[in-house]
Amino acid sequence: MNFRVVLRVLGIILVCEALLMLPSLVVSVYYRGEDIAAFGSSILITALAGIPLTCIRASKNDIYARDGFAIVALGWILLSLFGSLPFVISGAIPSHINAFFEASSGFTTTGASILTQIEGLPKGILFWRSFTHWVGGMGVIVFTLAILPSIGAGSLQMMKAESPGPTPGKIVPKVAETAKILYSIYFAITILEIILLRIAGLPLFDSAIHTFGTVGTGGFSNMNSSVGSYNNLTVEIIVTIFTFICGANFTLYYQMLKGDLCAPFKDEEFRFYLRTVIIAIILITINLYGNVFSSIWESLRHSSFQVVSIISTTGYVTSNFEEWGMFSKIILFMLMFVGGCAGSTGGAIKNIRFLLLFKVMKRELMQVIHPKAVYSIRFGGRAVNEKTISEVLGFFFMYIIVFITAVLIVSLDNLDWATTISSVAATIGNVGPGFGVVGAAGNYSTLSNLSKIVLSMCMIIGRLEIYPILLLGMPSFWKRINI
Amino acid sequence: MNFRVVLRVLGIILVCEALLMLPSLVVSVYYRGEDIAAFGSSILITALAGIPLTCIRASKNDIYARDGFAIVALGWILLSLFGSLPFVISGAIPSHINAFFEASSGFTTTGASILTQIEGLPKGILFWRSFTHWVGGMGVIVFTLAILPSIGAGSLQMMKAESPGPTPGKIVPKVAETAKILYSIYFAITILEIILLRIAGLPLFDSAIHTFGTVGTGGFSNMNSSVGSYNNLTVEIIVTIFTFICGANFTLYYQMLKGDLCAPFKDEEFRFYLRTVIIAIILITINLYGNVFSSIWESLRHSSFQVVSIISTTGYVTSNFEEWGMFSKIILFMLMFVGGCAGSTGGAIKNIRFLLLFKVMKRELMQVIHPKAVYSIRFGGRAVNEKTISEVLGFFFMYIIVFITAVLIVSLDNLDWATTISSVAATIGNVGPGFGVVGAAGNYSTLSNLSKIVLSMCMIIGRLEIYPILLLGMPSFWKRINI
Repeated sequence: MNFRVVLRVLGIILVCEALLMLPSLVVSVYYRGEDIAAFGSSILITALAGIPLTCIRASKNDIYARDGFAIVALGWILLSLFGSLPFVISGAIPSHINAFFEASSGFTTTGASILTQIEGLPKGILFWRSFTHWVGGMGVIVFTLAILPSIGAGSLQMMKAESPGPTPGKIVPKVAETAKILYSIYFAITILEIILLRIAGLPLFDSAIHTFGTVGTGGFSNMNSSVGSYNNLTVEIIVTIFTFICGANFTLYYQMLKGDLCAPFKDEEFRFYLRTVIIAIILITINLYGNVFSSIWESLRHSSFQVVSIISTTGYVTSNFEEWGMFSKIILFMLMFVGGCAGSTGGAIKNIRFLLLFKVMKRELMQVIHPKAVYSIRFGGRAVNEKTISEVLGFFFMYIIVFITAVLIVSLDNLDWATTISSVAATIGNVGPGFGVVGAAGNYSTLSNLSKIVLSMCMIIGRLEIYPILLLGMPSFWKRINI
Repeated sequence: MNFRVVLRVLGIILVCEALLMLPSLVVSVYYRGEDIAAFGSSILITALAGIPLTCIRASKNDIYARDGFAIVALGWILLSLFGSLPFVISGAIPSHINAFFEASSGFTTTGASILTQIEGLPKGILFWRSFTHWVGGMGVIVFTLAILPSIGAGSLQMMKAESPGPTPGKIVPKVAETAKILYSIYFAITILEIILLRIAGLPLFDSAIHTFGTVGTGGFSNMNSSVGSYNNLTVEIIVTIFTFICGANFTLYYQMLKGDLCAPFKDEEFRFYLRTVIIAIILITINLYGNVFSSIWESLRHSSFQVVSIISTTGYVTSNFEEWGMFSKIILFMLMFVGGCAGSTGGAIKNIRFLLLFKVMKRELMQVIHPKAVYSIRFGGRAVNEKTISEVLGFFFMYIIVFITAVLIVSLDNLDWATTISSVAATIGNVGPGFGVVGAAGNYSTLSNLSKIVLSMCMIIGRLEIYPILLLGMPSFWKRINI
């Protein structure tokens, strides 16, 4: 482990975080909120913690896979810790554990909240809470890379550790260049959605908040009843479309800009994602019609919004799906594990992995029928190598193991089945709302402190795709090696 | 597909089933029950259905993997269909679907019941119900092989398709010989347990019923409150020990007979199984003490019984674990997925697969730390080849897929989370009782017919370790191939 470089990069990340708090300070000054001092001191503390670390000089600047993983894992934990300062100092969330939960939930774009009363909080706090979604969406570390290309060498390792999905698309050879292109797209989508929501009738502040929650596939709202508060069909359609877009691979939009307008439909993962969404919407609409809503259009409206919101791991709500039929709830629960596409801002296991897993399943069955035949798994017209396949299978198993370990700890709270299981699924998958106590109309405030810490870690583990955080717990990860 | 041979073997299986009904007829005659005619006609119908098929002559006697899988899959479905005749004809279970559910539950050694009132049923019916556990325990088809070695050639394929676990132990070169040795051990354990339960104070009939349920890891009882009815500590200890024994690999006992008394402790899977049981017992005892039982011994007594009963996929009950804390319930729920060892009569995913999966997980993490190192996974001192590993990973994924597909269908009944999820886990894992409506004090009677059919198929799918039944659904499975 190259500790010096790791510490230096962590310092840079903290300084960046201090800078990222500035817009929230501006918001609180604009609204003359009581949270001005809270932001001022949070920025100061975060910067003061970061600056000394940035001065550490390393003899070698090389970073290897391990260092990359350490930076990402520790980086996200630090971001959440310092990101919780404004909540604690302003008094909006007095408990440190609750504030850490809320900040992790923000940065990891989960959107799970411990707040029972959101409306009425200072605007600066509400802005910061949602802005962390936007920052976390594309990965703060990639962001750091985009503006600080000086680190160079091992940056691909970090991007690999942080970007969702098994195949981080290197669009152009240089990492910093790739990050810049992805960020430009991200910016453009953000601006576009704010404008559209504004036109649809939302105040500018609400438009910004919901845009951050959408493009980061986070799900924090400034309203107690989430997007449902507005009861505005146009807003729901805009949010649904943008959520769907942000749950897909961003490199597809780069290809579209380059002139290949059909790029998404040539992509096997996108087609799988689209098909899953359509099937889920149809099944839930049928299940809702006559049982929950008397009109088929109302059923379709809420089912589309909720399906896209859950599969993209956003977690906005327009209808209390806790009251839907079990069939609809089980479908939503399953979608919490599917999640977005590789290279999107969405979380969970990802469509590409499920697609590959289904192909492996089909191959295993074919292999039994024709034991001597040799089948290779093809994706996007090319054969996938066996190492990738066993990585995907291994990832799936690890995801389930982390899931059941966390369920076991949360079960100590002695809550009902729905809450115990779904709280973990909704946090490790970065979705936000679950079922039962943590359902669409509920929140995470009543859980024990132990559960809150475990679920915060689940959010980070899920966001970083399992490995980085688990590695921190392995003794051999910390050993020095001479190469 | 060699249809002629497949049909002929299915005929032989039916004739064997007719013969296996004879002991139940004897029991009903002995007790002068009202079910004598039911058994007489069931035997007649089953034999008449089987005999014409046995006369089919095939030009080639060779059977390949596909034929073996077809025989096993169709064989178990036919066994359950014809095995339900005594229930329907005697009027004990008038509904055909309920009777099929009960018969599948018996043969697959699940022990899930649709009966609300067990005590008072004719003795012959109670005997047949539990006897199917005993028959199903070691696999009827292996039984067929043991007495009919004439089929020869492809019999290993069948044994492979039917025996639990990824490595069917060929103790001695000949399949029929292997089957005979395993059956002798099975017989010996059966006789021993009947004698011990008799000494502990149970009537002979009850001793036989509970022995069948134990050695087959089934779980049917002739008492409404299962083993708990007797409130007899000695009986509970005997049942716990034998359940544990039957959840382990039978070939270990063969090695012990050969003089290697430490054989189980040299076996990595057995040690994993033992460790899992001990850890689960300790955790549940701590959770129960003070919350459910005021005495630590009472907590230990019920936790040991229940842990062994669930992990071995037996499903006997001494305490209504529905009323235990969520932590204990989640542990039991997880054990439903672990199940017994390879080569045992237990069901579910099996200890050996979990052991290998954990090793894969550890390797994947080590690989990240040392990307250039080459790690091989070792089991019992030897390296496991990569093909086996990807088969195990693939199996795990398929198990989960079948699980969630069935959960989705059962969710149409619109029951609570505990029932919806655990009913599937308890049937695909061949456990029996789940949680909620299908919990320790409940049964499966209130589920819809669709759910009952799906859960019956889950039992068979689980018992045959996924492949055979799924293959039946693939068109290419049925195509003729020329080799």
